[in-house]
Amino acid sequence: MKHQTAQGRWEQYSQRPLLALAVGFAVAYAVPIVDHSAGHSLTSACTVVEWVVWGAFATDYLVRVGLAPRRKEFVRTHWIDLCAVVLPMLQPLRLLRMVSTLILVGRRARMAPQIQLTTYVAGAVVGLLMFGSLAVLSVERESPNGNIRTLGDAVWWSFTTMTTVGYGDHAPTTGLGRMIAVGLMLAGIALLGVVTANIATWFIARFEKDDVEERRQTEAIEALTEEVRALRAEVAALREPSGTP
Amino acid sequence: MKHQTAQGRWEQYSQRPLLALAVGFAVAYAVPIVDHSAGHSLTSACTVVEWVVWGAFATDYLVRVGLAPRRKEFVRTHWIDLCAVVLPMLQPLRLLRMVSTLILVGRRARMAPQIQLTTYVAGAVVGLLMFGSLAVLSVERESPNGNIRTLGDAVWWSFTTMTTVGYGDHAPTTGLGRMIAVGLMLAGIALLGVVTANIATWFIARFEKDDVEERRQTEAIEALTEEVRALRAEVAALREPSGTP
Amino acid sequence: MKHQTAQGRWEQYSQRPLLALAVGFAVAYAVPIVDHSAGHSLTSACTVVEWVVWGAFATDYLVRVGLAPRRKEFVRTHWIDLCAVVLPMLQPLRLLRMVSTLILVGRRARMAPQIQLTTYVAGAVVGLLMFGSLAVLSVERESPNGNIRTLGDAVWWSFTTMTTVGYGDHAPTTGLGRMIAVGLMLAGIALLGVVTANIATWFIARFEKDDVEERRQTEAIEALTEEVRALRAEVAALREPSGTP
Amino acid sequence: MKHQTAQGRWEQYSQRPLLALAVGFAVAYAVPIVDHSAGHSLTSACTVVEWVVWGAFATDYLVRVGLAPRRKEFVRTHWIDLCAVVLPMLQPLRLLRMVSTLILVGRRARMAPQIQLTTYVAGAVVGLLMFGSLAVLSVERESPNGNIRTLGDAVWWSFTTMTTVGYGDHAPTTGLGRMIAVGLMLAGIALLGVVTANIATWFIARFEKDDVEERRQTEAIEALTEEVRALRAEVAALREPSGTP
Repeated sequence: MKHQTAQGRWEQYSQRPLLALAVGFAVAYAVPIVDHSAGHSLTSACTVVEWVVWGAFATDYLVRVGLAPRRKEFVRTHWIDLCAVVLPMLQPLRLLRMVSTLILVGRRARMAPQIQLTTYVAGAVVGLLMFGSLAVLSVERESPNGNIRTLGDAVWWSFTTMTTVGYGDHAPTTGLGRMIAVGLMLAGIALLGVVTANIATWFIARFEKDDVEERRQTEAIEALTEEVRALRAEVAALREPSGTP
Repeated sequence: MKHQTAQGRWEQYSQRPLLALAVGFAVAYAVPIVDHSAGHSLTSACTVVEWVVWGAFATDYLVRVGLAPRRKEFVRTHWIDLCAVVLPMLQPLRLLRMVSTLILVGRRARMAPQIQLTTYVAGAVVGLLMFGSLAVLSVERESPNGNIRTLGDAVWWSFTTMTTVGYGDHAPTTGLGRMIAVGLMLAGIALLGVVTANIATWFIARFEKDDVEERRQTEAIEALTEEVRALRAEVAALREPSGTP
Repeated sequence: MKHQTAQGRWEQYSQRPLLALAVGFAVAYAVPIVDHSAGHSLTSACTVVEWVVWGAFATDYLVRVGLAPRRKEFVRTHWIDLCAVVLPMLQPLRLLRMVSTLILVGRRARMAPQIQLTTYVAGAVVGLLMFGSLAVLSVERESPNGNIRTLGDAVWWSFTTMTTVGYGDHAPTTGLGRMIAVGLMLAGIALLGVVTANIATWFIARFEKDDVEERRQTEAIEALTEEVRALRAEVAALREPSGTP
Repeated sequence: MKHQTAQGRWEQYSQRPLLALAVGFAVAYAVPIVDHSAGHSLTSACTVVEWVVWGAFATDYLVRVGLAPRRKEFVRTHWIDLCAVVLPMLQPLRLLRMVSTLILVGRRARMAPQIQLTTYVAGAVVGLLMFGSLAVLSVERESPNGNIRTLGDAVWWSFTTMTTVGYGDHAPTTGLGRMIAVGLMLAGIALLGVVTANIATWFIARFEKDDVEERRQTEAIEALTEEVRALRAEVAALREPSGTP
């Protein structure tokens, strides 16, 4: 019980610093892609920032394992966090490090009780749009047949993909670029689902308020209560004068 | 209380004239784009009409601030209106003036209690289709690589974008045109959500009518009421002849 | 009252023959488009069949007006039927006659109480796919820039449009073709809405069955009924031996 | 009754072996398509495996007919299974055998009570993506105008089709390829519907928990029960001292 509180406290206190680090990661990730002609020193600095943020999340994971009341169960139920932490070490791909950070931030955000599903999906959509544009740009710019060569094209392509419009004026040609595209498409379907579900719930909530059957039931129960109250008065009257005659 | 009524009365009375002015704005906006070879005098007249309509909405905002019981709170809760009024002054772009008017009309319409969400979205969809076609046409016609050069192409492109079909036979190539496209895509997702939610609500409303559990409850309450009524009669009978023997 | 029954009887009896005529219209419409090299006599025969079917629906409309208890109200509430009957006379376009017949068949089908919304939308989707393919083929085949030139391409294009996939390998280039495309797109959005709503209703119906609060209520009412029954027995027992002592 | 149990037992025991055979079919189907330059002996072996799996499903169908308590009714209600078993014999097309196996696996899976609709749709989506990619690749690779020539392109095209994005950078050109595409599109619409419905149900379930009217009813019933209990005590008190005076 005391251990669990310690873990909960840690997760509460570390949330804001980790979010700030995630923003730092986003900047460090974006700068060398947007400014393609950036010098070697700037690119190196950004790589260092990326690894520092990754290290912070890895430390966070280790602390949470240490504070968990049942460590084996924590590792088993948080295997996605473990993969997100370990995999960029084994195969130090730039893209994978980005995906890992996105997953780790997302899982930390989902745990926070004040974040609703709609906020979560909206945040994921904005994050995916931003990271998807940057990642596709960095991947497709190197491809000889690629047609996504400027940041503007990459952002535009992300929007047409996530809204499932898909003009086809720009489309990824490399394997990595297409994997990012599939992620954006699936996020777009989830976005559409959340928008529709929100509107539907709002409609149904308004409709339910007018539920006639429910109201009739409440009235019937109230009438019945009145009847029983009258009955009780009758019995009380029966009791009182029963001694008189 | 008296102030609030004054504000409410103003909003009620000014709604129809403002809607008429918005239609006037739409015409003044459309004419120079559709009739590309229009003379200088016609174009100037249309610009004057646009500014007059903008002025009317700005005046409406000022009057509402003046009539509001708590002015600071009104400005704070209606900051979108403020931006829509102020921004076209700072950066007098044709597009921004159009967007501002759309937002101001939309916000006034949303306040009217008789306008349902479905009507609001339907109106927004039609307005966006019309203004989106015109805006994209005026922007893309100037672009050297643009492929949207006639009103017919622009309307057709708007439909393929808003329904998320996106053939790609026509697609905007400029930054402004792509921003308009993103607006149309998001409106299309909202439209799809409202259509689906409407149908789902209608289905669920019909299904709820047949709710078996609810009906069984009502019957149970009615049977119980009958039981209590019989009990009351029994007690009454007990009371009456209790004095006889 | 008697008049209304007469109208209802007419609508019931005429439904099957009108549906058969609509199938005949579909065949007469399809033959000259599919068999492009058909002789003049076959084409003329098909045109005659089309006009006969149109005449049957026009007669049906007139009979319904005649049998309606309040003719003015019938005309006012069925103005779409009136337009669908009158417009092909004024402007004898092949396409408009097809649209009119689709609308008239659809409105008759919607009146039949045994046809659910899902069946109605499914029927409309199949009808629109078939007629849309044929209409687009007949329109685009004549266009110099058209890229829909075979029945296979037309059906394929209809599917990509209605499911909002929109590859863009085939797209209409004429105004009429694009109007048909917009109809297919809107039908596709409606189809998606009905599919989603059906699944959602089914999910919610299953979820509602497990409604714990509702079940607890029913149990509470049953327990209460038991309580009242016991009370009644107590009162009856009170009544019986009340005479003994 | 005993026959029905026998059929149920068979369906339960045969489920895992049939699923394993379906996986074997998938492998045998994929190998000659992915490894286009495979030797004749490997291709022949794969064809044999495909026919063996088909034979197992045909045997399963026959056993189920034999064990069914009312054989004619079983054949009538399972006519899709019959078609899926018989049709590949009449017209021994590779594609049809694949579709048959997909249908037979799907129908067996749907019968299993532990498989929810969401799992079923998710499985169907993954199966369709995999088989759709392979089938389109094998069909379009032979077509002179085809633009889907590698496995990567085929998988990418399947994703863009099923999510209804439809860039159009790759699109089937043959009749068979387009039929597969239509299947993927319809599966995509069903997927979108299931995703949306799941989110909507989750939203509505949370909203229903806060149902105020329901809670007020429960409180009213509890208050009423309290009232009746008090009444019963009153009557009991009436009964006890009624003999004393």
